[in-house]
Amino acid sequence: MLARRFSSNLASHVPALQSLAASDPSSILMSSSETSRYTRCWMDKYGHTDSGSVVLRPSSLMSLKQFLQYSNDHKLPVVTQSGNTSLVGSASPQSTEELVLSLDRFPSDLTLDEEEGVMILDAGATLSDAIDLAQTRGFVFPVDLGAKGSCKIGGNVATNAGGIYFNRFGSMKSNVLGLEVVLPSGEVIDMMRCMLPKDSTGFDLKSLFIGSEGCLGVITKVAMKVHRKPTSSDLCVFNCPDFDAVRTLTHRLQQTLGNITSAVEIMDAGVLNLIETKLEKKIPWNLNSPYYVLVETMGFHPQQDRQALESFFSQSFEDNLVVDGVLTQTQSQQSEIWGVRESCGPAVNSAEQSWKYDLSLELKHWDGFVKSVQETIGDDGRVVLWGHLGDRNIHLNVVSDLPDVNLADKIEPGLYDSVIRAKGSISAEHGVGLAKAKHMPNVVGEAVLNRMRDIKRVFDPNGIMNPGKMIA
Amino acid sequence: MLARRFSSNLASHVPALQSLAASDPSSILMSSSETSRYTRCWMDKYGHTDSGSVVLRPSSLMSLKQFLQYSNDHKLPVVTQSGNTSLVGSASPQSTEELVLSLDRFPSDLTLDEEEGVMILDAGATLSDAIDLAQTRGFVFPVDLGAKGSCKIGGNVATNAGGIYFNRFGSMKSNVLGLEVVLPSGEVIDMMRCMLPKDSTGFDLKSLFIGSEGCLGVITKVAMKVHRKPTSSDLCVFNCPDFDAVRTLTHRLQQTLGNITSAVEIMDAGVLNLIETKLEKKIPWNLNSPYYVLVETMGFHPQQDRQALESFFSQSFEDNLVVDGVLTQTQSQQSEIWGVRESCGPAVNSAEQSWKYDLSLELKHWDGFVKSVQETIGDDGRVVLWGHLGDRNIHLNVVSDLPDVNLADKIEPGLYDSVIRAKGSISAEHGVGLAKAKHMPNVVGEAVLNRMRDIKRVFDPNGIMNPGKMIA
Repeated sequence: MLARRFSSNLASHVPALQSLAASDPSSILMSSSETSRYTRCWMDKYGHTDSGSVVLRPSSLMSLKQFLQYSNDHKLPVVTQSGNTSLVGSASPQSTEELVLSLDRFPSDLTLDEEEGVMILDAGATLSDAIDLAQTRGFVFPVDLGAKGSCKIGGNVATNAGGIYFNRFGSMKSNVLGLEVVLPSGEVIDMMRCMLPKDSTGFDLKSLFIGSEGCLGVITKVAMKVHRKPTSSDLCVFNCPDFDAVRTLTHRLQQTLGNITSAVEIMDAGVLNLIETKLEKKIPWNLNSPYYVLVETMGFHPQQDRQALESFFSQSFEDNLVVDGVLTQTQSQQSEIWGVRESCGPAVNSAEQSWKYDLSLELKHWDGFVKSVQETIGDDGRVVLWGHLGDRNIHLNVVSDLPDVNLADKIEPGLYDSVIRAKGSISAEHGVGLAKAKHMPNVVGEAVLNRMRDIKRVFDPNGIMNPGKMIA
Repeated sequence: MLARRFSSNLASHVPALQSLAASDPSSILMSSSETSRYTRCWMDKYGHTDSGSVVLRPSSLMSLKQFLQYSNDHKLPVVTQSGNTSLVGSASPQSTEELVLSLDRFPSDLTLDEEEGVMILDAGATLSDAIDLAQTRGFVFPVDLGAKGSCKIGGNVATNAGGIYFNRFGSMKSNVLGLEVVLPSGEVIDMMRCMLPKDSTGFDLKSLFIGSEGCLGVITKVAMKVHRKPTSSDLCVFNCPDFDAVRTLTHRLQQTLGNITSAVEIMDAGVLNLIETKLEKKIPWNLNSPYYVLVETMGFHPQQDRQALESFFSQSFEDNLVVDGVLTQTQSQQSEIWGVRESCGPAVNSAEQSWKYDLSLELKHWDGFVKSVQETIGDDGRVVLWGHLGDRNIHLNVVSDLPDVNLADKIEPGLYDSVIRAKGSISAEHGVGLAKAKHMPNVVGEAVLNRMRDIKRVFDPNGIMNPGKMIA
């Protein structure tokens, strides 16, 4: 048996936690060889790997309630962890003092009501499972993102996850029809009593938990709207000569293609260059422009939808909004292009150093903003960007080949201030977590932050849930 | 000057309120000839007409803040009133003790950002003004409902209004991008710092105010998503032989027409009969079925969209889902049919007596449910229904020609219990107000209701905002 050094406070509670786990010994881990993958984030950036940690892994609602209630009664801090795919440290403990409550053994059942178009998911279901079930039954699950194989629905809801279908199917808030949540007191809050789209009976508690990042309670069950699966799917890439052309193209898209647009994504020359050089992946279109806009359409009339995109494609050339482009002819070409889009993140991770910013800004602000960040960093690095253009959410990344330079200190004060002044968001879809908690007073203002703290006290009066995160 | 009898508590505050109104004398009304239209609801069902009432009508944010702050400091109850079109008494005072805070003189400016597709509205703007501005600029405002000429956007948001375009453009929550709210303390909560669709920075306070029915604070400004105006619009009515056919038709619609469907409404033979007999309005289609389903499509490809609806129309006949129907050929035919749909409410109001229920239920429950209500009332009245079939929100109305019978007591206990058991909503889009406050413990459960009360204490610690309403 390994020697364990529990913090003075935690040590005295280990026997009681072990006894709660007696009937299901896998529901508690204490050996550091087993706990380290829970106590450190997947990027190896947040959390710790100290021994003496306790990881709780309930496999039932009852067990989760008991663990939470014990922690609350004894004021033990709890970090809830779903798929451990956070980019901002929201699911990682800051010390061995903090219990990790992992949902990796939690139930993961899914059922689909086809007449009502509603999927009911246990929090432990992976996003992939949800996407696959919907697909098999002729529907589309409204959330899809890179980490789908690992992330779980409880965490997706708790972090208000966005992804590539936000443009088409809307936000998490417009798709979640019901939630079941366990509060620190062990009380189960059932917000699944009506899973129909229209219900006006009281304050919307449900939305408080969407994006609450484990600071209020633990989401244990979700009811989610699913959408009828379109029968057409087309994809093209536009090579744009400058950002003004990108703006005009985006505006025209909204005017012309309207509701068959399913995704509008941008990639710049810099990120494509990284994909080619660092990942050695071939880009299947001509690289001759600073910006590339990927447009996907989906509809229910294959021939007409195709015609609409073709006509938009030609018109964009005639109007000099694009200098080159590709309109896919086959499903495998589509997959190849989506493969490039999905390589953007890994390409940046393969640079010597990188800093990631997940921003929302009005279209008119983007160009000047990117230029000013590039000016700030000078020759020490370069801005590369890609993201959800249609949603105004671009992932601005700074990469550097220099191993020792710290660009964060150079970039961040100015970057966050500019975004806030332009009424943008410093976290469009990745959340606040630990990474951005210190910016919250500037972001939301003291008046709003104080109300958020009041709300936290309503649900978590002892302040045990994810301390130091989000509204610390 | 009329004699006024202020309640002992209110009387002592009248001079101070008058002095706050000194620079804008129209911002306070005290003569009962002037106050009665504010203290009684439009249906003449909720509120009172007693003399000795005080109505505050601020014409600026500053004035509204001062009135609220004074009321809060002195614990004077305040009922906020927007367009006074509530169906559940949420905007009517229960006694002269309660100040009415009317927004009828409040600013009503509207601006539209076409690139971002966002309209910014002062709370005093009428819904009609918003609809018209959007229309003029090539957009659609996502909310449209019968009271649009009178109701105001502040009230629409505060009551989580639904309406005919919910099916197409989604809920109020998925369209509100920002809010400004004044709390009872006079503090302004600015939730318009980021009006972009994606923002994950902290708890979603905004959604708490959507549907809060004046119980938390006063909404003073709204940022709303607007949608590109479709270029095609088609409409048809299907005569369905029974409710099973209605169910199958609805399911097929979702599968086949997908995202060009803009409204799916139902009317039964009973309500059409009332329109013909009470309103003496001609129904422009054959009346030979128990149920009529109105389907409107909107898209961006007039010819193809028309073809899609035509083909769905013929297929429904072939599949014996409909026995008759009409596919409109002209804009004026469309308006005529929508005119019938909009007459449903007035037709019921013209019956000797009527009781209205605004329910959400899964499709599979509707038929049995309607039959059981009809059984309960027997020969004393009859069920008529219409509503937003696509959203599962049907307005079930009971009408009676008997002047003295009270069917409410006969219907309601069973009706509400059945809806709650079937996981439906007893108020899909009309809110709780005074009318349904007593049902809230059964509807949401004590655990949730207690949290709602906690939330109220966060924003309204003195409990002055709309006492006795919603979560009383």
